[in-house]
Amino acid sequence: MENENMVLEIPYGTRDFLPREAAEKRALETRLARLFGGWGYDEIVTPTIEYLDNLTLSGGSVLEPHMFKLFDRTNRTLALRHEMTTPLARVASSRLKDEPLPLKLFAVGPVFRYEQSQTGRQCEFYQAGVELMGSPSPAADAEVLALCVETLRAAGLKDFRLYLGQVEFINGIMEQYPLTEAQQAELRSYLEKRNLVALEKAVDAMQIPVPAKQALKKLPLLSGGEEMLEQAYGMALSEKSRRALDNLSAIYRLLKAYGVADAVQFDLGIIRDFGYYTGMVFEGYAPGLGFSLCGGGRYDHLLSSFGNPCPATGFAVGIERLLLARAAQGGAAQTAATGVYVGYAAGRDASAIEKALALRAEGRQVELAMRPQSEQEAKRSADARQAAVVYVA
Amino acid sequence: MENENMVLEIPYGTRDFLPREAAEKRALETRLARLFGGWGYDEIVTPTIEYLDNLTLSGGSVLEPHMFKLFDRTNRTLALRHEMTTPLARVASSRLKDEPLPLKLFAVGPVFRYEQSQTGRQCEFYQAGVELMGSPSPAADAEVLALCVETLRAAGLKDFRLYLGQVEFINGIMEQYPLTEAQQAELRSYLEKRNLVALEKAVDAMQIPVPAKQALKKLPLLSGGEEMLEQAYGMALSEKSRRALDNLSAIYRLLKAYGVADAVQFDLGIIRDFGYYTGMVFEGYAPGLGFSLCGGGRYDHLLSSFGNPCPATGFAVGIERLLLARAAQGGAAQTAATGVYVGYAAGRDASAIEKALALRAEGRQVELAMRPQSEQEAKRSADARQAAVVYVA
Repeated sequence: MENENMVLEIPYGTRDFLPREAAEKRALETRLARLFGGWGYDEIVTPTIEYLDNLTLSGGSVLEPHMFKLFDRTNRTLALRHEMTTPLARVASSRLKDEPLPLKLFAVGPVFRYEQSQTGRQCEFYQAGVELMGSPSPAADAEVLALCVETLRAAGLKDFRLYLGQVEFINGIMEQYPLTEAQQAELRSYLEKRNLVALEKAVDAMQIPVPAKQALKKLPLLSGGEEMLEQAYGMALSEKSRRALDNLSAIYRLLKAYGVADAVQFDLGIIRDFGYYTGMVFEGYAPGLGFSLCGGGRYDHLLSSFGNPCPATGFAVGIERLLLARAAQGGAAQTAATGVYVGYAAGRDASAIEKALALRAEGRQVELAMRPQSEQEAKRSADARQAAVVYVA
Repeated sequence: MENENMVLEIPYGTRDFLPREAAEKRALETRLARLFGGWGYDEIVTPTIEYLDNLTLSGGSVLEPHMFKLFDRTNRTLALRHEMTTPLARVASSRLKDEPLPLKLFAVGPVFRYEQSQTGRQCEFYQAGVELMGSPSPAADAEVLALCVETLRAAGLKDFRLYLGQVEFINGIMEQYPLTEAQQAELRSYLEKRNLVALEKAVDAMQIPVPAKQALKKLPLLSGGEEMLEQAYGMALSEKSRRALDNLSAIYRLLKAYGVADAVQFDLGIIRDFGYYTGMVFEGYAPGLGFSLCGGGRYDHLLSSFGNPCPATGFAVGIERLLLARAAQGGAAQTAATGVYVGYAAGRDASAIEKALALRAEGRQVELAMRPQSEQEAKRSADARQAAVVYVA
């Protein structure tokens, strides 16, 4: 019956987590919450729905066409939150405004974006977000990066890398040359999409000096270790670009102290799709997966949109993506504890209940039968559940 | 500036959980997930958004005016889930259809309903829902009731009670007398609202025999222990009502075996606001709180709406309500582990990082300073966080 299939559908880009998947998700989220707590970060839970105006206050509005919108009873526009940073900035600027700085906060939950179908890309997906608010220092950026590396390790990933850039480096380079705003925006969009062919074509078409063309075409290629910073200093003619590189050097020195520098590589062409970043930015990847695991950066102006000028830095990881990456790397999936199935003969239900309670009190996972069975039937039921059997005769 | 206040608003009926509240919420949810797992229940995570048609397939449609609706890109109507049972019934009827029965499932997450302002009533709130699908037996109802009692205990509540009724008892009583459908619906709505005055007035206005009037007026008063069942048998003239009471007797015998009968009282006038219940129904209350903590019952027809005829029973608890009730009962709130604040002198940032990592490796909760401080400043920062101080000079 067609109708029967109809009613079992779920909306495009959403998913059900079945028992093994849901257990892995819960175990990972619990582990990350413990990790963040251990680093002095406090959890915040914000509403799933916010006023659209609040979510698009800062540069996040480029994502507005991707947001799930609805109306409240006074016809004000609401939206399902599309990320965690803006809601945490709102909380930090209101109810936590008088707390001692820096604020170290985290949040775990679903976020929503209309997306095209693509591996690992959902319209509803789970994020863990970490935000450090109130410190302009490279020490804060380094802590956030180090905690991101620890997050990927805690998720069971062995093979991954963070790619680190600085938006002011790119801004500085662009300002060195006589580019219009439209030209800058065009180049940024190609950098964001990693479309090198389009970037080269656009640069070639511009009426600018040859060294400028060379420098702009080189932007997406500035990827590598510490030596890449030296190369970049050679291109940085403006104070702005040089300060951006100094900032990355300062961060990198601290990453060595954290013992995570090996997991971080420079990539000075990185542009992130949120407009609010003002300093270092980064993305994390695992080999062979066509999507980022995590991303973040410094956003020093977002909180002033909420009337609370305050520098800040942070990151978010995708929970489903971490689970996919771990599976791809053969990482230890959750192995369910072996349970016990308690079966019972007719008239022995009360004794079976007592037995089940006693086993649970010992910490065992116990499924109690819902009707009397023969011992053989109980064994078959237990086998179907990969559980040990206890029979109350 | 008025605008500044504007942008910090959140939608009516939603809330932010600040650090202590969010930590309590996470600790409770983790504890309940472990409890449910120990009873052999598997977690399922369903989308926050579903097709409206799916959520209103069964009797849940009475709540449709309370649902948050939106449209997908093909203009199909979506809704934020307003409860957990229907989505779990959908999963059980599709991707889990071939699993051995009974299915024992649970879900934890936010649900959404437009509500009037009222203590403890939010438009977005968190629920933990437990569903046992595939057993028509009183053993299943008793397990669900016993697990609900254990849930309230695990939440730290000492003083609470579950009130247990049976929808077929009320149906049977109503069918004994010549009531129109409209009259029955009117009486049900007064029973649901516990409006005894309106109920009496309506019954008095009906053209029915005096004994019928007496019986109908007595419905909301059938509250008490086992002796109440005997009284009710006296009123039950129909086979339907008697079978309903036999069912409650069978459940109650098993509740004694579970050691939870003291926490359960009969209340044969209970009507729940979901239309899909077909057997026992219950609600849980703590003294002095003007709202239920939890509720549930048997819903034997809901799964057939999804093309999968299958008896089922279950319950949901409100996470915020459990936390409120525990606080009202002076229950042990989460006491945050004392953390360590690591401060450092200028030039000692790398050593401070090493110290912080070492302390975290010992399992300590460590907040690292984000800039050099004097030892006195570091002590003040630590005090502001109620943390111990470690200073790297």
